[in-house]
Amino acid sequence: MTKALVILSGGQDSTTALFWAKKQFDEVETITFDYGQRHKIEIESAKKVAEIAGVPNKLVKITALEQLADNAMIQDKEIVINKLTGLPTTFVPGRNLIFVTLAAGYAYGKGIKDLILGVSQVDYSGYPDCRRETIKSLEKTISLGMDFEFIIHTPLIDKDKKETVLMAKEYGALDVMKYTHTCYKGQRPPCGECPACKLRAKGFMEAGIEDPILSI
Amino acid sequence: MTKALVILSGGQDSTTALFWAKKQFDEVETITFDYGQRHKIEIESAKKVAEIAGVPNKLVKITALEQLADNAMIQDKEIVINKLTGLPTTFVPGRNLIFVTLAAGYAYGKGIKDLILGVSQVDYSGYPDCRRETIKSLEKTISLGMDFEFIIHTPLIDKDKKETVLMAKEYGALDVMKYTHTCYKGQRPPCGECPACKLRAKGFMEAGIEDPILSI
Repeated sequence: MTKALVILSGGQDSTTALFWAKKQFDEVETITFDYGQRHKIEIESAKKVAEIAGVPNKLVKITALEQLADNAMIQDKEIVINKLTGLPTTFVPGRNLIFVTLAAGYAYGKGIKDLILGVSQVDYSGYPDCRRETIKSLEKTISLGMDFEFIIHTPLIDKDKKETVLMAKEYGALDVMKYTHTCYKGQRPPCGECPACKLRAKGFMEAGIEDPILSI
Repeated sequence: MTKALVILSGGQDSTTALFWAKKQFDEVETITFDYGQRHKIEIESAKKVAEIAGVPNKLVKITALEQLADNAMIQDKEIVINKLTGLPTTFVPGRNLIFVTLAAGYAYGKGIKDLILGVSQVDYSGYPDCRRETIKSLEKTISLGMDFEFIIHTPLIDKDKKETVLMAKEYGALDVMKYTHTCYKGQRPPCGECPACKLRAKGFMEAGIEDPILSI
């Protein structure tokens, strides 16, 4: 009996990763973090996606990131490039590290060793916590820190948005895409104008598939 | 101008580490986590210690650990050994990993690369997140994850409680020890009977120094 825990944001990538995981493991659970993100609609998306996938969804509220960061992903600020770091101001330092470590703590209590994270180092906006090298190091850190041999699976790590769309099709996650959330502006139907909407649209276009979200 | 951030719990070890850091760096700040620990008196201790040391103290509330763990360090439960893991039920999976990663996120925003953590792998109750190997791996993970070359200093890592007491004396942290908190029962003056009180008393006795906390 294999079991895995998927970190589910409610976006396109983690949703695809969830449907991938459902084919790889006998039992799958999901965990979603409310970290003060701009758009609570993401959390509703995660809940709906988990419901459709027929898997439990644990929602965990993190207050700490709001207290630490002056950040466009959390606060309602314009998204610009930070001149110091070269990263967009949507970068929350250590966000994926925190998510995975908390997910690992939760998985530890349930005896689950397999964690699934839907990051890609292709379309990663330069976020250093989406790189394979970071994830590998994190896997070692959580395993040592809890004395438990975790494996962090990143099935999308080398995929661009087009390949992610094709993967969603392969694993039966196309229909559910209409409930996922991508738009930086928090709009539903999506604005179609923000960088996140444009990247998503490009992926569907290149895959030759119509995005179900456009029919809502 | 060198700057460091000390993770300050309000206990004996992190207080000693703070006074050590004050001798090594031009400027020192502290960060304390309210993670739902049994005894809020720890947080008051941290505040008082930082005040006496003349350094800023940032308090960050973490709600996530309470939501994840069924744990004697957080909830008011009897402390026993978990038969599955062999660890006391005061073990919060990944606690130090979370603290250091959040501290690193905070330090990142301030351009601080040096983090100080008062863990010891000698008197560590078997907690795997106090081992040098874990801390080294974590240092690499946060550096990769934020693309910033952090150093995690652990000046107490190889010290037992006797040596920690002697170190506190060397760095002028003896007087402030009266404000630190150690007792698992949350009592002040300390109960003197719990494992934490006994370990502390043993350290002072072996160092041939009277614990200032006994005179309050």
